[in-house]
Amino acid sequence: MSALAGLRVLDLTRVMAGPLCTMLLADMGAEVIKVEPPEGEETRAFGPPFIEGVSGPFLAVNRNKKSVTLNLKHPRGQALFLELVRGADVVVENYRPGTMEKLGLGYEVLSRENPALIYCAISGYGRTGPSSQRGGFDIIAQGETGIMSVTGEPGRPPVRAGIPVTDLGGGLLALYGILVAYVHRLRTGEGQLVDTSLMEAGVGLSVWESVQWLMAGQVPRPLGSAHNVGAPYQAFRTADGYMTIGASNQGLYVKLCKLLGREDLLTDERFATPGARGARRTELAEIIEAMTVTRPTADWLADLEKLGIPSGPILTYDKVYEHPQVQYREMVVEQEHPQVGRFKGLGLPVKLSRTPGAIRHAAPLVGEHNPEVLGLTADEIAALRAEGVL
Amino acid sequence: MSALAGLRVLDLTRVMAGPLCTMLLADMGAEVIKVEPPEGEETRAFGPPFIEGVSGPFLAVNRNKKSVTLNLKHPRGQALFLELVRGADVVVENYRPGTMEKLGLGYEVLSRENPALIYCAISGYGRTGPSSQRGGFDIIAQGETGIMSVTGEPGRPPVRAGIPVTDLGGGLLALYGILVAYVHRLRTGEGQLVDTSLMEAGVGLSVWESVQWLMAGQVPRPLGSAHNVGAPYQAFRTADGYMTIGASNQGLYVKLCKLLGREDLLTDERFATPGARGARRTELAEIIEAMTVTRPTADWLADLEKLGIPSGPILTYDKVYEHPQVQYREMVVEQEHPQVGRFKGLGLPVKLSRTPGAIRHAAPLVGEHNPEVLGLTADEIAALRAEGVL
Repeated sequence: MSALAGLRVLDLTRVMAGPLCTMLLADMGAEVIKVEPPEGEETRAFGPPFIEGVSGPFLAVNRNKKSVTLNLKHPRGQALFLELVRGADVVVENYRPGTMEKLGLGYEVLSRENPALIYCAISGYGRTGPSSQRGGFDIIAQGETGIMSVTGEPGRPPVRAGIPVTDLGGGLLALYGILVAYVHRLRTGEGQLVDTSLMEAGVGLSVWESVQWLMAGQVPRPLGSAHNVGAPYQAFRTADGYMTIGASNQGLYVKLCKLLGREDLLTDERFATPGARGARRTELAEIIEAMTVTRPTADWLADLEKLGIPSGPILTYDKVYEHPQVQYREMVVEQEHPQVGRFKGLGLPVKLSRTPGAIRHAAPLVGEHNPEVLGLTADEIAALRAEGVL
Repeated sequence: MSALAGLRVLDLTRVMAGPLCTMLLADMGAEVIKVEPPEGEETRAFGPPFIEGVSGPFLAVNRNKKSVTLNLKHPRGQALFLELVRGADVVVENYRPGTMEKLGLGYEVLSRENPALIYCAISGYGRTGPSSQRGGFDIIAQGETGIMSVTGEPGRPPVRAGIPVTDLGGGLLALYGILVAYVHRLRTGEGQLVDTSLMEAGVGLSVWESVQWLMAGQVPRPLGSAHNVGAPYQAFRTADGYMTIGASNQGLYVKLCKLLGREDLLTDERFATPGARGARRTELAEIIEAMTVTRPTADWLADLEKLGIPSGPILTYDKVYEHPQVQYREMVVEQEHPQVGRFKGLGLPVKLSRTPGAIRHAAPLVGEHNPEVLGLTADEIAALRAEGVL
């Protein structure tokens, strides 16, 4: 049995944060029903790549879901939606705050129809407060929550974290909120509103950075590949590229100095403690790099691994997905789609021993589950489509 | 009532991924008991900053937790730990795979003592596979899972995402696994093993990037502040700094061109679709930037907001935590600690309407809850401390 079997989720979300959240519910067995406008959710038009006309980005965040179409601006579409709400456990949406209310489908209305409903809203800035009505994208949140201010090299133009960390973080935090609310509901039968945002993801995940400013009054700055807490902990040049080494704690640092043939550093007052090394990280990095450039990456990594010093290559994605461990942990898996055929996508990032998640099927076609979910005949569906309801 | 009241978590984790995971459980009412070695968990020595001798980083990820000390290498410490396990719901650890087994406290042993136990392991690479025994830190995972390969500017040295995204992601994914397993347990009484890693966080969150390589055979590259999916969606220079604009979809792009006084772009074939704009993003950015540099950031942002075009400033952390919306959503809150006094830390990133989380107390002192949790008298504790058990 899947852990979340029987959990019915109405998924009104678009693009990334919301769809990631609901996909991770679906992976664990929840019945996630995408409620799409008649023309399909907007991510279906995102690309390239399109494979046989199907959006790659759409496929990536919508596996294991069902799809129904409903025009929520049409009274009949709204009525059908409310009927679904009465039989659902969770509704998730990532519209701008107020959008669902304008449709007459806000939390107040839905929770009256179904008091046990868990309603999760993911927005740019949260449902309340002076910025609540502003539109939010990951790039905006990365800029406004400080992430861009600590990413990149000093004195260069702004750089974002290469993956959309506030979108991803917002989706994961919404997932946490929904599951916590579901625990409460299993115990008491009560539903509630879960409210989070890209802004709260960006700020809430600035854990180390908050310490620097709120406790020490220091403004964290971008440090390239290095970190403001300890050193050495960054990328170093080798004879044929770069590698990472994380050896800021004393035991690892001692091993590293020996490997580099620089035991003399161990008695060098300038680098005696992790804190001292952090403060002089550039100076220390130059000394270390003078050694690391003498041999190729693979040779260093073999030696570093033998000594148990955390270290690794810097891989591009073509190499990442071929990595033996990535393969072993089934992080790349084949899926089958009626139009696309067989294709490869990401696997499940968390392994549960008794109720493992599974990829049961690829992303749905638009309205593929209209008959099943809405309980309508083909004729009824055709008629409602003609009227612009589905 | 808190949503997770009554959930008892034994927290063996150190540093970031694990402590973040268990803190988010504690915020929602779980009783999280840090099980620390007699000298205290290693993060207690992380800094600067230290405030009145207390580590800032430690305070940041350990609020709402209790602390007991147990020497898990001592037979008596192991026995006391097993006693706690019998009364616990969840154990979380982020040691290298095999460490708990060597102590005689692996999942097999613990689940025999308590078959309903949820045991969550967060490691560098997962508990199985060829890399399982390697040490993992965020910097290593960022390099090895591709994140560094898409962060930074083309042709420059490697840059990491400024916040430790695989640590944070690993912690959030573990949280997801634990809560899903807890749902299963509430329904069936069965425990299980939850197994995730920094590697799986890094790879599992490369959603857009996986599409580029696995479906289109293109290796994603670093693009500074830009994105490989659409354009314009990046930072632009202004007269006095930089701002972000996310206007890759057609409606927003049209509005932006009009605001910039460049309606002519709307009939420019080169930039007709989001895909075309993505392919010529650098060319388009130069055209846009020629306009944005003419006025200061604040003026542009006022106009962009009026038109509903997602946009924002690029803030350093001193400004982030003063942001009216960040304040309004209580993302910075005061805590009180017996040694530190009053200090500021991050707030709760997810708002629940019926069972809101709360910051009940700051991070614990080492062994503060030995009497309460272990049920021992002061004399017994003193004796066990002298023997090196606590």
